[in-house]
Amino acid sequence: MSAIAAVDVIRAKRDGAALSEAQIEWIIDAYTRHEVAEEQMSALLMAILLNGMTGAEIAAWTTAMIASGRRMDLSTVGRPTVDKHSTGGVGDKISLPLVPLVAACGAAVPQLSGRGLGHTGGTLDKMESIAGWRATLSPREMADQLSSIGAVICAASEDLAPADRKLYALRDVTGTVESIPMIAASIMSKKIAEGTSALVLDVKVGTGAFMKRADHAAELARTMVALGSREGVRTSALLTDMSTPLGRAVGNAIEVAESVEVLAGGGPADVVELTVALAREMVSLVGLSADPAQVLASGKAMDAWRSMVLAQGGDPDAPLPTPRFREVVVADETGVVTELDALPVGLAAWRLGAGRARKEHAVQAAAGVLCLAKPGDEVRVGQPLFELHTNTPDAFTAALADLSGAIRIDPTGAAFDRPALVLDVITEG
Amino acid sequence: MSAIAAVDVIRAKRDGAALSEAQIEWIIDAYTRHEVAEEQMSALLMAILLNGMTGAEIAAWTTAMIASGRRMDLSTVGRPTVDKHSTGGVGDKISLPLVPLVAACGAAVPQLSGRGLGHTGGTLDKMESIAGWRATLSPREMADQLSSIGAVICAASEDLAPADRKLYALRDVTGTVESIPMIAASIMSKKIAEGTSALVLDVKVGTGAFMKRADHAAELARTMVALGSREGVRTSALLTDMSTPLGRAVGNAIEVAESVEVLAGGGPADVVELTVALAREMVSLVGLSADPAQVLASGKAMDAWRSMVLAQGGDPDAPLPTPRFREVVVADETGVVTELDALPVGLAAWRLGAGRARKEHAVQAAAGVLCLAKPGDEVRVGQPLFELHTNTPDAFTAALADLSGAIRIDPTGAAFDRPALVLDVITEG
Repeated sequence: MSAIAAVDVIRAKRDGAALSEAQIEWIIDAYTRHEVAEEQMSALLMAILLNGMTGAEIAAWTTAMIASGRRMDLSTVGRPTVDKHSTGGVGDKISLPLVPLVAACGAAVPQLSGRGLGHTGGTLDKMESIAGWRATLSPREMADQLSSIGAVICAASEDLAPADRKLYALRDVTGTVESIPMIAASIMSKKIAEGTSALVLDVKVGTGAFMKRADHAAELARTMVALGSREGVRTSALLTDMSTPLGRAVGNAIEVAESVEVLAGGGPADVVELTVALAREMVSLVGLSADPAQVLASGKAMDAWRSMVLAQGGDPDAPLPTPRFREVVVADETGVVTELDALPVGLAAWRLGAGRARKEHAVQAAAGVLCLAKPGDEVRVGQPLFELHTNTPDAFTAALADLSGAIRIDPTGAAFDRPALVLDVITEG
Repeated sequence: MSAIAAVDVIRAKRDGAALSEAQIEWIIDAYTRHEVAEEQMSALLMAILLNGMTGAEIAAWTTAMIASGRRMDLSTVGRPTVDKHSTGGVGDKISLPLVPLVAACGAAVPQLSGRGLGHTGGTLDKMESIAGWRATLSPREMADQLSSIGAVICAASEDLAPADRKLYALRDVTGTVESIPMIAASIMSKKIAEGTSALVLDVKVGTGAFMKRADHAAELARTMVALGSREGVRTSALLTDMSTPLGRAVGNAIEVAESVEVLAGGGPADVVELTVALAREMVSLVGLSADPAQVLASGKAMDAWRSMVLAQGGDPDAPLPTPRFREVVVADETGVVTELDALPVGLAAWRLGAGRARKEHAVQAAAGVLCLAKPGDEVRVGQPLFELHTNTPDAFTAALADLSGAIRIDPTGAAFDRPALVLDVITEG
């Protein structure tokens, strides 16, 4: 018989107490070993969501989740390691140009990534649009690629914070996802276990983000930066706007194409701006002197991209998949675009097949939405606003309905002030 | 696919909303049919515990739990039906003399009862000390016995509010027992489904009760009285003191013996007082004119007891089981007993074998504690205070430890004011 009983831990949190490190260690370990029942853990999660956790509790929770699996050792890589994590947005393909860019600056970026669920896309889903590219690497392959190229985007292994995987599935069905302590612990347990020495968080705020409010996003960012510091990972966070999609492409293959444009020195201004801003923060955290804007212009980031894709079996020159069906939405008035709401665009792309409703579903590489007019652009009646791509044309009706109120055009042509993309930077201490 | 999703119901309650009748009906029904998972229901229960429920929600929850099984019809019984429910206390054998007493006053008392779990005993466990007595009656047997004798104490059938049974087992392991709305709905769903036309609640308050605070007990009482009224069951509640055990006997067979003493016109004053007070309230709720004190003195309640025991296969004249081992605790000073704490006495009786730690355990009929001195009694050094009974003498050490601080003796012999037994009466409207 155990000295700690699950029901006593639940009651303590229910009654507003802070849990001890020993209680947290015990319950995460026992839950991972199936000795604490799902219904006990979900009651505890709801009590945590409603009564909160102290910084010490969140740290103990994170440490316990890391200890549920294996912490990777990247000390032999021979370059400073630094990673980025985004809380998820619409058209957020930033990892694709960013990882090779920071590698080209001299660092190693061990990006363990996920697949998309719901209206925000997944980096692995996007990369899998590339013919032959594989998401799974052995720890040895990953370390070798980090040493030689500096850039890795791959799937997390099963033994990376397994408690978090089990908890996330439970939170999803029990209405306990929306807890800042739990979100912070979930993200940071995986990133710390991955073995990176530094981390830059891209915390999104706005309609297309998980966090709709700036104060909540800032609280999440501060919580995660504190967790990184406690575990010896230099961590900072950028709060960035997610009220409108990033770039013009929202989907899988079309986001790869847009990322390659950025690596080639072109691409949408906002994608370039955010890629360079995050790269500067990452490079600075590990004390490198390279200027990411110059490195991007030099073509070395593109070289790193091609090497990374090739190393994982992909063909960087293969044509990307194209959709069997397209629909175009045109402007019904002339004026200036003052709003393009990220959420309906993300939902439309998801319905067209770019995302999945359940984790066992497959995604369509060619599905998505191209946003042909962005806030600040002038448009004329009849000019295309959106191009919808899919292989399943039944999806058009619902996707078009999503997009019906997504864009606002001001016919007076009033001057439009584009909101800042990087809203705040949160650093340690 | 259902129009209502469990996760949306959980999120609504989590975010402080009142659930609709349709949501509550759906989730209780789907949970009973195993279509809502245990981990979803436990998250909802924790959200209810922390965020509360409105009167309308509690009523809908109660109605849905009744509808999960069969509501009994006692309209053919030919006597007014009235029942009593106690929230549980130490030495609370009141149902044993009360049920036959109220039957002898002309009513029918359909007491569906339970077994004990933890430090408060169960009425069925006590009755099963009587040789041959059986707790299980068919609905037909129950109705016949209510018509002919007016007194039934028996086990609830499986189809009486099955949702409540399933929910109670879940609440027990998830730290979600202590919710006044859930406690009220649990008790009232069973009592309303049982088919009684009137109900008197004995809501205990004090160290030996589930409710330690008078304000919580009063809130529970008001909630239950309101639920009864909504469902057409005339309901009132007595708030009664449970800081000290009721009577002198705490156990199973010894509580039966004490109850028979009361029916014979003797017994401890507090047991007689509470039995008569509850009987008066029950008789008055159904408009009968009999005076319970006179009926008790007449011997008719004893006749009803004997008939009830015989009808259920028991022998009212059979000797009650006696324990194989006894220990006596004596006073170590002379003075007046000013306190006898119900909780340690209940725990000691439980450890000696009178109660069970898990529902599949058996109880010992002969186990328990006799309290030989009660508050207000004068005692001398060396005079017995407790007599401990058990068939498992290994239990003595822990039981004696429980009792070590249970009694307080004032050597100055100061005048002692016995606290009132009935603290308040709560009625409809």
